[in-house]
Amino acid sequence: MPYQLYYWDSIQGRGEFVRLTLEEAGADYIDVSRGLESSGQGIHAMIGILKSRSEAHIPFAPPFLKDGDLIVSHVANILMYLGPKLGLAPDDLGLRHVANGLQLTITDLVAEVHDTHHPIATSKYYEEQKEEAKARSAEFIDNRVPKYLGYFERVLKQNPAGPAHIVGDRLTYVDLSLFQVFEGLRYAFPRATAHLADRYPLLTAIHDGVAKRPNIARYLASERRIAFNEDGIFRHYPELDKDAK
Amino acid sequence: MPYQLYYWDSIQGRGEFVRLTLEEAGADYIDVSRGLESSGQGIHAMIGILKSRSEAHIPFAPPFLKDGDLIVSHVANILMYLGPKLGLAPDDLGLRHVANGLQLTITDLVAEVHDTHHPIATSKYYEEQKEEAKARSAEFIDNRVPKYLGYFERVLKQNPAGPAHIVGDRLTYVDLSLFQVFEGLRYAFPRATAHLADRYPLLTAIHDGVAKRPNIARYLASERRIAFNEDGIFRHYPELDKDAK
Repeated sequence: MPYQLYYWDSIQGRGEFVRLTLEEAGADYIDVSRGLESSGQGIHAMIGILKSRSEAHIPFAPPFLKDGDLIVSHVANILMYLGPKLGLAPDDLGLRHVANGLQLTITDLVAEVHDTHHPIATSKYYEEQKEEAKARSAEFIDNRVPKYLGYFERVLKQNPAGPAHIVGDRLTYVDLSLFQVFEGLRYAFPRATAHLADRYPLLTAIHDGVAKRPNIARYLASERRIAFNEDGIFRHYPELDKDAK
Repeated sequence: MPYQLYYWDSIQGRGEFVRLTLEEAGADYIDVSRGLESSGQGIHAMIGILKSRSEAHIPFAPPFLKDGDLIVSHVANILMYLGPKLGLAPDDLGLRHVANGLQLTITDLVAEVHDTHHPIATSKYYEEQKEEAKARSAEFIDNRVPKYLGYFERVLKQNPAGPAHIVGDRLTYVDLSLFQVFEGLRYAFPRATAHLADRYPLLTAIHDGVAKRPNIARYLASERRIAFNEDGIFRHYPELDKDAK
């Protein structure tokens, strides 16, 4: 039975981290919200679970994954669940928790990206919090991006198995997620990220290596890959971008 | 060998979710930053790991847990690691991911609590972002608290094993974390939370049940429980509090 991924149908957003892992593994999955209503899919199938008054383990928000009767929610949790099944997690149980810790740091970074354009209220439009968004974006570019990316670069440098992967000696879902973070930051903040390759060579190598993997390259070129847009997490608002310090 | 918990020495903060689990289980652990420098503990022992240029798996930020050579970081990850070892996680592997999903929703709630007093920049003082903090807190009280607590109340109501626990039919680390969320929200926002018991009776029962557990009651009365204060995550700034809608 295929995995069923539930996420918004018109953005990469948080769901993209799960899509990349499923695609790299060549897993059999359905992106439910993008399916046809006539076959019980579409966005209403997702809303139905979110609003269900009978479902045993309801998720707080998308994305969530259904595997048979089990519903697993939150990106890092879904990836920790899928990783070992798809051969994209370390074999060592301790290292699986190291991978999960790294993924949760990516989760935090992604939440901060969201807050660059929504620093006050998720329930309000960007245009209603534009001034605060400028202040928060400047802080993000000056302090938070170097802190996060500097950290990942250092993790790569100190990986006892070598800097080709973020944990252990082979590809995991965390490498795929780092690729997506790089793509997203470059889309949202082209000025601030102009020098990423110089400052973070090991991370850049991870990004470039993932982009060239046959399954990923095929996915990125397909219609299944939704383009970045201003409804997603990574949004390009030129007024929030600036040169890095 | 005792577990070694690394967290800031003068706040409950995120570390408290781990402390509560270790305390409930009666686990042998050291709260390293609060120990004596003369015995290799204290805050510098923690900073040493964070800044290490040789450690294999460095954490991004506290809290982190050392178990032998393994370093596990992020609250939800630490609890997912400890839960099964301490008898505070479900036995069923699928339900462990359900528990982790719930804990990650608590993580998101806690991050939003932090941002009520730091909506623009973690690197700046509260006083420098007080106006934005007021706007964000109003949004938090009006929209986010009901959304999160309403969700947890619904999860309790729909738990197939009954509403006495948030997942499965016995105490897990997620119940302990819900207790802490309740405590924290009531400390930070006494006006906004005046009606919690009426609106969220099942959650309130979880809170009250945890408070009465012998190991927890003993811990809360001990010097090991740091009092809430305005350096932590849950801060009481009267100007940010208001009546719930």
